[in-house]
Amino acid sequence: MGKVRTILLQKSVFADNDCDARKLRDELEEKGTFLINVMSSPGAGKTTTLVSLINRLKQYLKIGVMEADIDYDIDAVRVAEKTGCKSIQLHTGGMCHLDASMTRQGIDGLDEKLDLIFLENVGNLVCPAEFDTGAHLDTVILSVPEGDDKPLKYPLMFEKCGLVVINKIDALRYFAFDTERCKRNIYARNPHATVIPVSAKTGDGMDELASYIYKTINREEKQCPSRTIK
Amino acid sequence: MGKVRTILLQKSVFADNDCDARKLRDELEEKGTFLINVMSSPGAGKTTTLVSLINRLKQYLKIGVMEADIDYDIDAVRVAEKTGCKSIQLHTGGMCHLDASMTRQGIDGLDEKLDLIFLENVGNLVCPAEFDTGAHLDTVILSVPEGDDKPLKYPLMFEKCGLVVINKIDALRYFAFDTERCKRNIYARNPHATVIPVSAKTGDGMDELASYIYKTINREEKQCPSRTIK
Repeated sequence: MGKVRTILLQKSVFADNDCDARKLRDELEEKGTFLINVMSSPGAGKTTTLVSLINRLKQYLKIGVMEADIDYDIDAVRVAEKTGCKSIQLHTGGMCHLDASMTRQGIDGLDEKLDLIFLENVGNLVCPAEFDTGAHLDTVILSVPEGDDKPLKYPLMFEKCGLVVINKIDALRYFAFDTERCKRNIYARNPHATVIPVSAKTGDGMDELASYIYKTINREEKQCPSRTIK
Repeated sequence: MGKVRTILLQKSVFADNDCDARKLRDELEEKGTFLINVMSSPGAGKTTTLVSLINRLKQYLKIGVMEADIDYDIDAVRVAEKTGCKSIQLHTGGMCHLDASMTRQGIDGLDEKLDLIFLENVGNLVCPAEFDTGAHLDTVILSVPEGDDKPLKYPLMFEKCGLVVINKIDALRYFAFDTERCKRNIYARNPHATVIPVSAKTGDGMDELASYIYKTINREEKQCPSRTIK
């Protein structure tokens, strides 16, 4: 594993984030790169889920990871060590979210032709939902200990995300979390959401998640390789 | 239990939040009211902890609760039903934090002479740390499933809070959470923090937490009753 770079992100110079996000999305599409924005509360298991997912996908896709944190360097190193993939740490300088301009700075820092880039956003269920990063797929990870009512309390996040991963299902027996009620709460916010329960720790559900992402990339991104994932 | 009111908060008109926060703090002190700002990630157990705490304190102090959420009405009703205390729901209209002006609107809505007011802030470890609400004590609840590294990843929150409650210690055996390492991470951010591990679910540690809060109020607020809590 090479040394993991850290970038201190500069504030946006673009007045219109939505416009910049569309531009970034189009540019990535032209290059054949699919960008996934991964959001969650602090401690829902974003990094652990990404490591588990990348290790299932990396034989089929060339993958890069951007780890956004306010002030911390461990996650990018951890992902690089555990997956061998190119990883970069983004410091937001206290900012609570990423926008398209900041995402672009990270992608420029990865500096490689990639099939798939994961953007691990700042741990926050509120602000990141308000900013289009230029991603092709917005994903939220909700973990069992947080409770099945969170889609009701953080509506915009669940309206925005096409994919909802319910993580830490190995802990279901220890918490009053009703998966079916949680799904109803998610669908009330977004009837078209895909919901996949997993345990990144035990691996339960991770093959289904990897398969879903691989198929989504191949369906939506004609430039991506069409090899078959088991 | 009476009907629980909901207030849709208006954006601040004050340019200088710090100044407004100091003013609010002073006014509350004059009235003999102690304000505690309770922050955490989504799902760390703020409401459950408050219910457990209030039921230990309510025989000694007249308590009110403000429940801030982006768009949800359940928490204030839950607190009122389970404690019998005056409770009010604050809708932030999408805002990710509360400032002093919004806190003042909530206090005006409680409309009663109280010894102690809890402000349950929006579930978010980032933005609420940046705004002085006028509280006399800032508190963060960190739950075991989130991981012991969170004080390193969300530094400002842990620098700001005089009291750190480690919740869900009943789940310690299911998660790779090292309480001593967590305490070291907290003290690295704030050497003067008071750290109290609890399980709001089982009640472990809750007497100590109630006692700490009661003593803090009596030490810092001469106007509060000096009855002794066990």
